[in-house]
Amino acid sequence: MTKPLLYFDNAASSWPKPPQVGEAVLRCINECAANPGRGSHAMAVQASRVVFEARKHAAKLFGFKNPNDLAFGSNTTEALNLAIKGHVKEGEHVICTAVEHNSVRRPLEYLRRTKNVQVTYLETDEFGRINIDALKENIQSNTSLVVINHSSNLLGSILPVADIGQLCRDKGICLLVDAAQTAGILPVHVEQMGIDMLAFPGHKGLLGPQGTGGLYIHPRLDLEPLMHGGTGSQSEAIDQPSVRPDRYEAGTPNTPGLAGLSEGLKFVLRTGAENIHAKEWGQTQRIMEALRDVPHLRLLGPAIGEERTGIVSFVLEHMDASEVAFILDQHYGIAVRAGYHCTPLAHETAGTGKTGAVRASVSYFTTDEEVDTLIEAVKEIADSVIL
Amino acid sequence: MTKPLLYFDNAASSWPKPPQVGEAVLRCINECAANPGRGSHAMAVQASRVVFEARKHAAKLFGFKNPNDLAFGSNTTEALNLAIKGHVKEGEHVICTAVEHNSVRRPLEYLRRTKNVQVTYLETDEFGRINIDALKENIQSNTSLVVINHSSNLLGSILPVADIGQLCRDKGICLLVDAAQTAGILPVHVEQMGIDMLAFPGHKGLLGPQGTGGLYIHPRLDLEPLMHGGTGSQSEAIDQPSVRPDRYEAGTPNTPGLAGLSEGLKFVLRTGAENIHAKEWGQTQRIMEALRDVPHLRLLGPAIGEERTGIVSFVLEHMDASEVAFILDQHYGIAVRAGYHCTPLAHETAGTGKTGAVRASVSYFTTDEEVDTLIEAVKEIADSVIL
Repeated sequence: MTKPLLYFDNAASSWPKPPQVGEAVLRCINECAANPGRGSHAMAVQASRVVFEARKHAAKLFGFKNPNDLAFGSNTTEALNLAIKGHVKEGEHVICTAVEHNSVRRPLEYLRRTKNVQVTYLETDEFGRINIDALKENIQSNTSLVVINHSSNLLGSILPVADIGQLCRDKGICLLVDAAQTAGILPVHVEQMGIDMLAFPGHKGLLGPQGTGGLYIHPRLDLEPLMHGGTGSQSEAIDQPSVRPDRYEAGTPNTPGLAGLSEGLKFVLRTGAENIHAKEWGQTQRIMEALRDVPHLRLLGPAIGEERTGIVSFVLEHMDASEVAFILDQHYGIAVRAGYHCTPLAHETAGTGKTGAVRASVSYFTTDEEVDTLIEAVKEIADSVIL
Repeated sequence: MTKPLLYFDNAASSWPKPPQVGEAVLRCINECAANPGRGSHAMAVQASRVVFEARKHAAKLFGFKNPNDLAFGSNTTEALNLAIKGHVKEGEHVICTAVEHNSVRRPLEYLRRTKNVQVTYLETDEFGRINIDALKENIQSNTSLVVINHSSNLLGSILPVADIGQLCRDKGICLLVDAAQTAGILPVHVEQMGIDMLAFPGHKGLLGPQGTGGLYIHPRLDLEPLMHGGTGSQSEAIDQPSVRPDRYEAGTPNTPGLAGLSEGLKFVLRTGAENIHAKEWGQTQRIMEALRDVPHLRLLGPAIGEERTGIVSFVLEHMDASEVAFILDQHYGIAVRAGYHCTPLAHETAGTGKTGAVRASVSYFTTDEEVDTLIEAVKEIADSVIL
């Protein structure tokens, strides 16, 4: 970087990482980059161990017993595609919310086009909350999947996953949770919360490198794999092997990435997701308190004092969101994200479907000084708005 | 590693990498791990540049004009799944060879099961060669795809891609080449060779880190994406954007991995694939010359003096292939791969369908001393075989 950077784009990808993340990646590339699960020699065994370590840490963090119920992949999008396309069959019905990311919406719309799948988008209030009774009422005899975000990537709102999990369990419907904004930040326990599939990124709250992510798959489920190919096991079988995780992990994995993810997971396990969340929440409250009375500025998502993840999105009336982001970047060295955040329906919900919004997102490492600088910068920009 | 390792498993994943590969990955994680294409701030722009650099180097190496005709993914398996599932439609016919990897065979068999696709496996001779006339004769009016490996991952045999490309061009059939064993090792020029889709790994001959790979897609083709999701572009569209590479690259890419791949590609471009191949070929010839007269040892694939990639596979009669590999690992610190190499049909072709084989695979960095040690070790093991 040529100038100091104040990074408020953690909802897209977290930065910085704990130093041991990069170190583990480098060590893996230089010392044990053999192909895990595809050889019995010392280095292949070591590579397999790297991958299994990451799996074990994830199982511990997310509360499932068998680490092999986790399918690693390159990002949350892959995990969601595997979950949605692998589970939903021709003519079935799916319920999701109106604030889902395009990585949920687009696979569902693809199934609508190609497999006659019906999709219900549950409306939310402007704070991203759904009505569980409305969810219940929309369940049909052919509903096979409910997909919800744990937290909206625009609003920071948090859905009551455990309540929804209980309902889905009662109705015998599979629940898929998109934890893109909460894995490593809010406590997640798939068994206690009734989550059948959990899709998560490695490079956001888990503080691992990009190129990592995963899907927890309840042992009773059997998905059609998204990728068919070599697994190093049951080579002679024409179909993917049924054994997990091989069934869902065709092809050479991102071993160095998973070495880094392992370190990110260890950091989160040591620190505690609840502590990470508490710190991030505190920073969002400071930002919101400071910006609440700024003229022409509207904060999105849950009100001050309410639960939210580390996201503060806002609009400045009479100023384009991308212009605000541009000024923050160019004049202040502050990185935020403007636009539609791959979630156009959430923007419609928030009344920003035409304008987009500015999203500032913190991490555990965001300092008070950085927050103060952001606040001052936004205030100055707001002051400069010519009406 | 606890002991010195002689690495002969480069066909699974290459090691070592040029030092700048790991350094670039680490630098990216620590300095520019923002989300490329999903923000306009300085670090996101820098991340986008990292990804585009890798794309440009790949375009240069493989001979296509527009870097955006390349879809990056996590490995060759993903590239092949995108190519095969994205191109072949209900009821169409596909021709491949009988020595394809499971990453070709299993997607095709999946399409046979689910989309009534017909698959012809072209027989090869024991050296992995196909008869182009036989290929021609098997073309039907509904043949929409020919899939061939550039080099068999068991036999090291090399197929005449340009001739097959010419035939496919004449017949108006799409040609997909699996370059898992040749990208970065044999010269590949997609335009000159008539390749419509080229699937390649980042972590083998291109010397990049695991978690990288890609698919070149001819501009006239329009594939159904394998992943549907966010791209940072055209967020409001229900379908994947039509613009490349976004259409085929949903979700956050492996930016640090691609930073490393970029360095691997630069190394290959500087060194020249033909020089890399010449050196690897020389080492295979030394191994084969030394092992040709060893009793009870049978070398697979093309004869001495003929073209092959850096793979020497062999069987020791009366000794299990995995036992040979085990002894090489445990007693000599030599890493090879035994078994079926995810290509059971190739083993049937080679007459090793019941026994598997031992595969030793070299890289540009394999030294004469390492080769000598391998040769001596294999000879000692062969001598110890009790009949």
